[in-house]
Amino acid sequence: MNELKDNIAISIRESFGKQRMLASLGAKMTHLSLGHVEIEAPISNAVLNQHNSAHAGLGFTIGDTAGGYAALSYHKAGTNVLTIEYKVNYLEPGIGQCLRAVGRVIRPGGRISVVATDVFAIDGDTEKKIAVMQGTMMVLKP
Amino acid sequence: MNELKDNIAISIRESFGKQRMLASLGAKMTHLSLGHVEIEAPISNAVLNQHNSAHAGLGFTIGDTAGGYAALSYHKAGTNVLTIEYKVNYLEPGIGQCLRAVGRVIRPGGRISVVATDVFAIDGDTEKKIAVMQGTMMVLKP
Amino acid sequence: MNELKDNIAISIRESFGKQRMLASLGAKMTHLSLGHVEIEAPISNAVLNQHNSAHAGLGFTIGDTAGGYAALSYHKAGTNVLTIEYKVNYLEPGIGQCLRAVGRVIRPGGRISVVATDVFAIDGDTEKKIAVMQGTMMVLKP
Amino acid sequence: MNELKDNIAISIRESFGKQRMLASLGAKMTHLSLGHVEIEAPISNAVLNQHNSAHAGLGFTIGDTAGGYAALSYHKAGTNVLTIEYKVNYLEPGIGQCLRAVGRVIRPGGRISVVATDVFAIDGDTEKKIAVMQGTMMVLKP
Repeated sequence: MNELKDNIAISIRESFGKQRMLASLGAKMTHLSLGHVEIEAPISNAVLNQHNSAHAGLGFTIGDTAGGYAALSYHKAGTNVLTIEYKVNYLEPGIGQCLRAVGRVIRPGGRISVVATDVFAIDGDTEKKIAVMQGTMMVLKP
Repeated sequence: MNELKDNIAISIRESFGKQRMLASLGAKMTHLSLGHVEIEAPISNAVLNQHNSAHAGLGFTIGDTAGGYAALSYHKAGTNVLTIEYKVNYLEPGIGQCLRAVGRVIRPGGRISVVATDVFAIDGDTEKKIAVMQGTMMVLKP
Repeated sequence: MNELKDNIAISIRESFGKQRMLASLGAKMTHLSLGHVEIEAPISNAVLNQHNSAHAGLGFTIGDTAGGYAALSYHKAGTNVLTIEYKVNYLEPGIGQCLRAVGRVIRPGGRISVVATDVFAIDGDTEKKIAVMQGTMMVLKP
Repeated sequence: MNELKDNIAISIRESFGKQRMLASLGAKMTHLSLGHVEIEAPISNAVLNQHNSAHAGLGFTIGDTAGGYAALSYHKAGTNVLTIEYKVNYLEPGIGQCLRAVGRVIRPGGRISVVATDVFAIDGDTEKKIAVMQGTMMVLKP
């Protein structure tokens, strides 16, 4: 029942592989299951803001992507998703070695899915939630 | 009356210059006046998504920054702003040579400012609005 | 070109008339044209919050409705809209005789429309913007 | 450790009692503990929309209130909160006897609190999540 359909996992990994923005950021998909996707990206010098913490745009970028693929995980291979909108609240500065975005699905749907993503900063052994996101994805059937 | 105070323009340009994420994206501040900041970034191969258009994260990153500095433009040099939250609706895919984020201030405030940003894709002679953003900035006095 | 199609104006007014919540609040549609709908509601004792200004829920309720009908105004009679999501920033307390919500359409669409609403408090001769809203409507074809 | 401070419970109940909008809607606070507030309101004829389900504004109104008081529960008596902004995604129509809003705090703060509210429709023995909300509260010290 919690199984991914068909070859959607392959489809999602292929799609992820085509996103050059994610490659530029060094992002990796570290978890993929039904309605649950995790993406990590290093907090390298290249993504810092003026306070020397991770730029808000880094958390948003991997958070948006994690939420989108979590929505897509309910569908058949060949399906696509587009972000209609996303809202993010920042809780703490992103300090540490990497950010991890954990995307989940609040309501899967045939046309519209509602998703949420928590973003964490990982600093040595500690993990701190730095942002919470809530958004809407449009499902594009193959 | 529409003048920038003190040396806030210098302060904003210095702050922008420290943001390595923006340098990594090739972003430039192309306009700065009271409550109005524009930032442009090229749609290079490095920022594409799986559909070969600009990643949602690129528009968000420069849009967040444009809104933040628009809020900051009302304050004295040494003041800082932090993004409390931002919401973005995507209207069209980001196709063309570059994205331009136009940040403005809906309500300037001593502690909290409400801002809005429109993001445009510039493709040759045409400019298309691809995203609208609305958010909240916290003002940090020096 | 800016004409409303078919009998959509009748359709919208009928729909408005069926909304008992709006009747309970004393709300009236004071303007309806293509992509532009205005709704007013009195700031009666019945809608006050603990600070004796209009409850945030009043502005949201008429703002959501104004945005929804603005989206609907692009379509044929018999079409319906549903609010997918809405985001509101409050700027000022709602003080005065009534609130006016001005809904407009940022991007009309066949399936999804992006809308924005400004909410004003009218106090004697003055009108003050008290909230800005941005949201997404789903279009339901007849 | 999970105790409410001082007389904040009394302070919150007094504040709730002053909100005439909530009285007009028949809303009741059914739970109050640290970072957790529940508010219920009947789905009477007076709050219906054109589809004969609860108007989006009803869920928003009690959801906003539940989130606000959840934020306030961390503070001393005499403190107040103001909604800076809120975002809501609707999942299902609000059908049944009443709506229940469950507000919680994602990050309590001295000046700014980030909150989330789930809204449920209760129909006989079944309870269905119909909306998810995420927002920001400003804390006003006494």
